[in-house]
Amino acid sequence: MSNQIPYRKNIKVPEPTLRRLPWYLSNVRLMKKRGEKFVSSTQLSKETSIDSSQIAKDLSYVDITGKTRVGYEVDTLITVLEDFLGFTRVHKAFLFGVGSLGSALLRDTGLSQFGLEIIGGFDVNPDLVGEKINNIPIYHSDQFLEIMKDTDVHIGILTVPIEISQETANYMVEGGIPAIWNFTPFRISVPDHIVVQNTSLYAHLAVMFNRLKFNESND
Amino acid sequence: MSNQIPYRKNIKVPEPTLRRLPWYLSNVRLMKKRGEKFVSSTQLSKETSIDSSQIAKDLSYVDITGKTRVGYEVDTLITVLEDFLGFTRVHKAFLFGVGSLGSALLRDTGLSQFGLEIIGGFDVNPDLVGEKINNIPIYHSDQFLEIMKDTDVHIGILTVPIEISQETANYMVEGGIPAIWNFTPFRISVPDHIVVQNTSLYAHLAVMFNRLKFNESND
Repeated sequence: MSNQIPYRKNIKVPEPTLRRLPWYLSNVRLMKKRGEKFVSSTQLSKETSIDSSQIAKDLSYVDITGKTRVGYEVDTLITVLEDFLGFTRVHKAFLFGVGSLGSALLRDTGLSQFGLEIIGGFDVNPDLVGEKINNIPIYHSDQFLEIMKDTDVHIGILTVPIEISQETANYMVEGGIPAIWNFTPFRISVPDHIVVQNTSLYAHLAVMFNRLKFNESND
Repeated sequence: MSNQIPYRKNIKVPEPTLRRLPWYLSNVRLMKKRGEKFVSSTQLSKETSIDSSQIAKDLSYVDITGKTRVGYEVDTLITVLEDFLGFTRVHKAFLFGVGSLGSALLRDTGLSQFGLEIIGGFDVNPDLVGEKINNIPIYHSDQFLEIMKDTDVHIGILTVPIEISQETANYMVEGGIPAIWNFTPFRISVPDHIVVQNTSLYAHLAVMFNRLKFNESND
């Protein structure tokens, strides 16, 4: 941290805010399709069922100013939100573990529309190494450190079995990957400067199953 | 709600607890592979970097008692956790929107190991209707209400474009689906008794991109 920079533009936005902003973006995109030119926090609040003061607070992190009475310009809000959320920049990624979920993610072209470009997969399965999925080459895991040298990959997607989750995470860090998107149900330990985003579909299933059971038993 | 039931076993477990329990499960599974018979909260704490008092608190929701000094029996803890999290029961699901992410999820056989069985997909694309992906039939969306009558599906997976997220959610509710797993970046509104689990990969990307940018700018 330097004390010479008086104003830090890249502030650490609270995670709940970062999770709500894409909701506003989706809604504003729909409004644009309906031909609307301006949108107020009150309108967004009605559409998303989120408190309008919360929306105003969330949007205060984003560099946009609303006009009195009419609100935010729809076109500008979309551009500014997409940019703020990082969806307009290309973030290159490697995926580790081309199993069922891993190959599913390689096939999901939707991610690239949100700024994620997977440029390679790694696995040890001889049936997969040398092949391509969705035009993305699959390399042997042993090749990673070598291949990493020639790339500017910032994200490692972790979709390996839990037995090797930790060692694969260590391997990514060793290769210089600063952010790990962890899809395994395993909690990995990494150095403080490494970003970890956990997306465990199984944890989400567990929450859903519990709520379903709770509702059923309270019918 | 009935007042006649003095003790309600299906309590609403806090979401953070439900998200941590699969971490413990993964770790205990690894310990079993290493041949360990007992595990203590202290050990689990070391492996997961979660406070041991938090672990004890989380496990207090689960119907298991540890033995003084040795801790929990590994085999029992696995069985009890899998059961508690709903991974041992089969939960049938329909998937709506067989696009890029939707077909990726149909191909992910890993979900069935955690209790989710997708038994059908719905779409309007004539190239898809009548086809199968991973042996799962794809029907025309118009057939849903009819097909739903003969099934005991409790979960609807939402992977449609944002323009039709809300109407598709309404359609699921109309058909009697009590839980919606929403993968769209759109915030859907549903009646109070409907369970919604939001899993927006794009929101997770936004969080990861922001943290990366923050770290870079603070290097």
